[in-house]
Amino acid sequence: MATKKKKSSTRSPRAPRMVYYFGSTKVDGRAEQRSLLGGKGANLADMTSIGLPVPPGMTITTDTCATYYDLGGKMPSELMGQVSKAIKTLEKETGKKFGDGSNPLLLSVRSGAAVSMPGMMDTVLNLGLNDDSVEAMAEAAGERFAFDAYRRLINMFGDVVMDVDHHFFEDAFEGLKKKLKVKEDTDVDAAGLRQLCELYKSVYRKHVGKPFPQDPMGQLESAVEAVFKSWNGDKALSYRRIEGISGLNGTAVNVQTMVFGNTGDDSGTGVAFTRDPSNGKNEFYGEFLINAQGEDVVAGLRTPEPVKNMAKWDAKAHKELLKIRTKLEKHYRDVQDIEFTIERGKLYMLQTRSGKRTGAAAVKIAVDMVKERLISKEEGVMRVTPDHVTQMLLPSFPSGAKKGHSSATKGLPASPGAAVGALAFTADEAVERAQKGEKVLLVRKETSPEDVDGMHMADGILTSTGGMTSHAAVVARGWGKCCVAGAGDVQIDAAKGKVTVNGKTYGRKDVFSIDGNTGEVFTSVLTPEQPKGITGDFKKLLDWSDSYRRLGVRTNADTPADSKRARDFGAEGIGLTRTEHMFFEGDRIMSMRKMILAESEADRRKALKELLPHQRKDFTGIFTAMKGLPVTVRLLDPPLHEFLPHEPAAMKAVAKEMGVTPAKLKARVESLHEMNPMLGHRGCRLSITYPEILEMQVQAIVEAAIACAKKKVKAKPEIMIPLVGTKKELSMLRERAENVIAATKKAKKFSGKLNILIGTMIEIPRAALTADEVAECADFFSFGTNDLTQMAFGYSRDDIGTFLPDYLEQGVLPVDPFASLDTTGVGQLIETACSKGRATRGDLKLGICGEHGGDAPSIFFCHAVGLDYVSCSPFRVPVARLAAGQAAIAEKQG
Amino acid sequence: MATKKKKSSTRSPRAPRMVYYFGSTKVDGRAEQRSLLGGKGANLADMTSIGLPVPPGMTITTDTCATYYDLGGKMPSELMGQVSKAIKTLEKETGKKFGDGSNPLLLSVRSGAAVSMPGMMDTVLNLGLNDDSVEAMAEAAGERFAFDAYRRLINMFGDVVMDVDHHFFEDAFEGLKKKLKVKEDTDVDAAGLRQLCELYKSVYRKHVGKPFPQDPMGQLESAVEAVFKSWNGDKALSYRRIEGISGLNGTAVNVQTMVFGNTGDDSGTGVAFTRDPSNGKNEFYGEFLINAQGEDVVAGLRTPEPVKNMAKWDAKAHKELLKIRTKLEKHYRDVQDIEFTIERGKLYMLQTRSGKRTGAAAVKIAVDMVKERLISKEEGVMRVTPDHVTQMLLPSFPSGAKKGHSSATKGLPASPGAAVGALAFTADEAVERAQKGEKVLLVRKETSPEDVDGMHMADGILTSTGGMTSHAAVVARGWGKCCVAGAGDVQIDAAKGKVTVNGKTYGRKDVFSIDGNTGEVFTSVLTPEQPKGITGDFKKLLDWSDSYRRLGVRTNADTPADSKRARDFGAEGIGLTRTEHMFFEGDRIMSMRKMILAESEADRRKALKELLPHQRKDFTGIFTAMKGLPVTVRLLDPPLHEFLPHEPAAMKAVAKEMGVTPAKLKARVESLHEMNPMLGHRGCRLSITYPEILEMQVQAIVEAAIACAKKKVKAKPEIMIPLVGTKKELSMLRERAENVIAATKKAKKFSGKLNILIGTMIEIPRAALTADEVAECADFFSFGTNDLTQMAFGYSRDDIGTFLPDYLEQGVLPVDPFASLDTTGVGQLIETACSKGRATRGDLKLGICGEHGGDAPSIFFCHAVGLDYVSCSPFRVPVARLAAGQAAIAEKQG
Repeated sequence: MATKKKKSSTRSPRAPRMVYYFGSTKVDGRAEQRSLLGGKGANLADMTSIGLPVPPGMTITTDTCATYYDLGGKMPSELMGQVSKAIKTLEKETGKKFGDGSNPLLLSVRSGAAVSMPGMMDTVLNLGLNDDSVEAMAEAAGERFAFDAYRRLINMFGDVVMDVDHHFFEDAFEGLKKKLKVKEDTDVDAAGLRQLCELYKSVYRKHVGKPFPQDPMGQLESAVEAVFKSWNGDKALSYRRIEGISGLNGTAVNVQTMVFGNTGDDSGTGVAFTRDPSNGKNEFYGEFLINAQGEDVVAGLRTPEPVKNMAKWDAKAHKELLKIRTKLEKHYRDVQDIEFTIERGKLYMLQTRSGKRTGAAAVKIAVDMVKERLISKEEGVMRVTPDHVTQMLLPSFPSGAKKGHSSATKGLPASPGAAVGALAFTADEAVERAQKGEKVLLVRKETSPEDVDGMHMADGILTSTGGMTSHAAVVARGWGKCCVAGAGDVQIDAAKGKVTVNGKTYGRKDVFSIDGNTGEVFTSVLTPEQPKGITGDFKKLLDWSDSYRRLGVRTNADTPADSKRARDFGAEGIGLTRTEHMFFEGDRIMSMRKMILAESEADRRKALKELLPHQRKDFTGIFTAMKGLPVTVRLLDPPLHEFLPHEPAAMKAVAKEMGVTPAKLKARVESLHEMNPMLGHRGCRLSITYPEILEMQVQAIVEAAIACAKKKVKAKPEIMIPLVGTKKELSMLRERAENVIAATKKAKKFSGKLNILIGTMIEIPRAALTADEVAECADFFSFGTNDLTQMAFGYSRDDIGTFLPDYLEQGVLPVDPFASLDTTGVGQLIETACSKGRATRGDLKLGICGEHGGDAPSIFFCHAVGLDYVSCSPFRVPVARLAAGQAAIAEKQG
Repeated sequence: MATKKKKSSTRSPRAPRMVYYFGSTKVDGRAEQRSLLGGKGANLADMTSIGLPVPPGMTITTDTCATYYDLGGKMPSELMGQVSKAIKTLEKETGKKFGDGSNPLLLSVRSGAAVSMPGMMDTVLNLGLNDDSVEAMAEAAGERFAFDAYRRLINMFGDVVMDVDHHFFEDAFEGLKKKLKVKEDTDVDAAGLRQLCELYKSVYRKHVGKPFPQDPMGQLESAVEAVFKSWNGDKALSYRRIEGISGLNGTAVNVQTMVFGNTGDDSGTGVAFTRDPSNGKNEFYGEFLINAQGEDVVAGLRTPEPVKNMAKWDAKAHKELLKIRTKLEKHYRDVQDIEFTIERGKLYMLQTRSGKRTGAAAVKIAVDMVKERLISKEEGVMRVTPDHVTQMLLPSFPSGAKKGHSSATKGLPASPGAAVGALAFTADEAVERAQKGEKVLLVRKETSPEDVDGMHMADGILTSTGGMTSHAAVVARGWGKCCVAGAGDVQIDAAKGKVTVNGKTYGRKDVFSIDGNTGEVFTSVLTPEQPKGITGDFKKLLDWSDSYRRLGVRTNADTPADSKRARDFGAEGIGLTRTEHMFFEGDRIMSMRKMILAESEADRRKALKELLPHQRKDFTGIFTAMKGLPVTVRLLDPPLHEFLPHEPAAMKAVAKEMGVTPAKLKARVESLHEMNPMLGHRGCRLSITYPEILEMQVQAIVEAAIACAKKKVKAKPEIMIPLVGTKKELSMLRERAENVIAATKKAKKFSGKLNILIGTMIEIPRAALTADEVAECADFFSFGTNDLTQMAFGYSRDDIGTFLPDYLEQGVLPVDPFASLDTTGVGQLIETACSKGRATRGDLKLGICGEHGGDAPSIFFCHAVGLDYVSCSPFRVPVARLAAGQAAIAEKQG
């Protein structure tokens, strides 16, 4: 590592500015220079600019990091010169001297890229201390304080800069405490810490091979180079690969004057939000600790006090903080999450950033800030994320629910929501117990494709390994089911049906609560808050969004109840009614099976006749519920074998019920068996070989529309022919459907206008590629992006679980293409189909009914390619309304 | 129907020429006017032009037919006027008079579109006869002759023009024969035929509702209109739909002077080929009958004599015919199939057309004609079809083999070749008997997807129903297996294991022979001729083709033996070596299974180590066989479950063999089970999750190449990574492969150049769409059009049998897209990938290794889009060589 001072022999022709100063003397950087100064650096400059009390310092640019790599890993020759100059200014401002024996200037060094990036180098604090200056500091601020600072420097410098394993320092400390017969770190006195510094220096020398550097500039140069190196460290590289972050220069380095909250009872430190991040109330929210460093707040050894109590301790500092709160919100026009330190009565701002918030808070803050004229309505709509909306529609544990409970451990917030249930240890167990009505959490080390049934039946999923792209996480998010993943402290013994968390053991009868928004795991029963529906601020915000959006929002619904729910959520029609679900209820399945077993067209027609009244009734119900809004009905899509039993016992029972021999049923099941049912005899292919199925369905639609008309309900059915791959399929079936429409109107003596559109799903790549031809006989296209994704990628959605986690983990795919549309590949097919289709027919109606219709980035894409509407599950309708509005606003903003 | 003379009230503004005359006076039409005059009409005009003795007549244009439909089904007002004018000319030329009582001009009426089209109207002969003229004709040519002609007219006119069912006439004839106590039609004397005419007229009057028309111009107008109507008859429409024929105006109508070969012993008729169509020898080949009509030759009641005997009967006519033979070949520069009639010593040519020929004949004729300087080499290459080449490579029954055998019946020549076998009545039976070494023919009413195993094991397939697009036909052609379909005279009683043909019954022990080139079914044992390989004229022709082609031709081969065979057929490399087949032999499958069951990477590597030497040996063998030609090796492609047993008994046995519990094996089989294996965990997805598989395979390839180099064989391996859908997959795996190549060279201390290309199959639509990105890390693309077709259409090749026959039958698909590339849809993906890929990398090597690589129309497409090579099964290599040459020649000719 960087122990030797490498003097670069390579000189750049002219010296660009590598160091940007921020302080009371001058501020070189600006808020907009994130790419050059990194997020943290730009922010420090900005805060300083608006007059906030920020400890002065400098930022070394990201370009400098790039130059470091261009030089083959050498420090640019001009850099340290520029740094020295900035330090001179610092010394002038602070009245301290870097490396001085009497009044030492101490510095911190932090990395900071343009994008927040875990895996980069940790902070090094207290740079500038050495055997001399520590004594001076001891004199000025006390021995304990000074040697505590010094031992921290040696440890951090050794660990972070020089790669000395942290545990060597730990061991030394433990040894000392044993010798001193004390338990806690804080029990070690000044003399002990002085001794510890000596021990640490030996550890350092032993593992680095040379003594701890006494030259402060040398310390600094090594630390800066270590930050540069960490930019291309394994962890950072893999983070950027997984997150698909590219196009960045390098990292910036922030070198800042140290301030201390632990120099006595007139010092302290705290964190706060300018508004309450859990409910959005316009109240200053946070906590502070007297005589403490920031890490003490995080460590949780002492209990901090709420910020509202700060006035009692230091009224001046409190007043200043409240002023800063207002100033920050005015400046950043958003809720801020701040860190501050008070050193001997003087307030310093260490950080400000946009505050993370819950869905409810996001909505309230956005609406409030619009009311307060802090932001425009458009900005208000942009401030709420689709995830916030999802949270608003899911059960959650608000802070009230958590009162009196403390989380036993924390995992990754893999899928939002809140779940409470007794522990189940296998998928089968989860299924069995859930079917008996018990609420269960499926608790697994990790999940695999065999577990999906159990995952589906469980109220929530908790895993002890795996990340945000693990099987459990991916599947749960797909379903909108609460999941906490990778909770490493949860030790599972599935064979024994036991879980151990923090030394306590729990079994099948114990109930846990998990918070999918935070990753918290409670070993107690919390009461989740149920979603309130679309009211108040939430309604206001979605209405605003509606006023901007160009895309229509429809829903996928197969029943009157779902249709109603979706209308309540704001759906403007049904984009997909699947008719096959209608064939499973009650007697219907028996008629369906008769149809499938029929050996002649006449017998098939007889069985279909039994199904007709059911279908008619279903359609009448849906048309009525939608009150004149359009309803796209997809004709029968799945392969026929899905309606037959496959297990020997079930086959026997069904055969008996149907009055046929088991052998006959078995033969039919076998003849219908397919190697790849996804690519088999289904969709419009069924209607080509068995046109009587289409005829029955169209007849039922038309009869339902006529029945509605007689009750003064204007039904607007749109008949959608699925799985079309060639124009010919559609032209033949369209003609057939038109004939049935005409014949049914005639038979029902109905002379009114029905105006039934006939169109197709574009879900076969070939249909997209030949959309100019297909559009000749289509009134509308609806993109079936589930199947389109399956075929464009060659991924079976049912089977992708075996490799998707690997693909996400290794960055082969940036995201599950079934969750968020692959705009590069699948998107090309959609764009081709849109432009070719509209070239043939300018008024072609275009929509999407795959599950991507409820995914925000996909909705942005749908907006961009000019679709007329998106259709999604009822539950995603509010998300779609928001995303569609945001897409329109974003477009306007360019 | 057209009994009433419809006088159209609509007049076109000017009268276009509707009638084109041909005769000694003048010839209006030209050979090039096929689209206006139809094929037959253009040909009659052409023959007349070059001075052949063609009975004069006229052709009514296809435009006239179009006008008929434009007028809503009315005869254009000017038409019959123009016809009358032409008849005047005819009368002048022949010295006869249409409708005259003393020397009647008789006419034939035939349809004739630009493309030969079954389903159009049949011929009507002897138009112009009526109760008067028949007496005049009786006087001139004999009573029997005249009334025979008249009864034929009434029958044909009633049946063909007026839609009177033929059997009414048949019944009348049978009744008369009974009354006259004779058996054969020919036994009825003149008086009887006179009586028959009266009976036929009553039948006509009864069913048409008015008497048989006596006005010849009326007869003619009705016949012409009937031809027009037949253009849009159901049969013609469905033929055009199925064959995908569009863009035609309508049909032409040919009205021609009748000549009679049955007016006495100085008359006769015959058919001939200018060269022998079975072997191509330059010998006049055909037969004739004295005192007979053309239909008598076809009916086969009398045995015709070979044309060489004609000189003995009528030396003059024979000499003239030989002259015509030479003239025709000179004029048409191809073998002609002619019909001629001699009426009272005068020779008339009735038809000439390009003669159908066997593969062997086609090759010989093409090469001979080039030698004779009748045609150029390029033309010679264009004269042989891919089907001809296929025939040359399949067993066949040449005319010699059929000597002494007569075919019992004829079906459709559904798939070429020759097969001889004992009858098997079910697929299971065929499998069972074939496995015991018996040669069987599978004889079924029709086949279905369940029969494929039996079809595969049988030597040939014979069905009694179904057309050229039936399941049996489609599947057999796909495999290159001999099939005769729709042999309606074959009555099958599968339950009893009996077949009845022409009243004779056969059973399981009987052996049939079927000719897939002709559709003939023999109930006896014929000896097929085995293909001779590429020698003599065949070799010469393919060499010529090679000299023109731009496309390279490679082969798909997995073994040294196949590689050798393909090289003998002219393959210039291997475009696809599938490595999975290599894992099934002997011990290998056990190692493979160990690998699959392994629970850790280390165990997997151990099992893979066992496979390494086998793979190395395989590759060494193939590289050696290919002697320096490039060999594309595809890394492991199928899902792992294909290597495990699935039946309980097999699982038990394998588990025992492997020393694992059956439960463990079962669990692994279940965990690997996929709903849609086509779209599952296979191809490069395996290498992403189990990189060690790729590593072993690449190591084996490199070690084999090094081993070859040491034996002075220059191996040229090309590593092909299958099923890539994203650039990232390829870039990761390419890097991994490159590392293995480097490591292996180092380990083997090999410092030479290996120059191993690394590329991918383009078989996922997304890869084609993003080919610009994928090409960044590919040295070559090879289009895997099987999978590309599966995914572009959403068709599982394993399951398409359930609906493909319907799709072909109803014209939804023009052709099986797995047999011949869908250039509209799948072709778009290929074009996109080619242009995007080459835009990224100009020297990107492009090939195709799907089965389309051996299909001629697909090869034309590959040529057009600029691929570098096609790769196909060894057996198709000669076809590909020919088609690639033809594609280049066709392009040159524009």
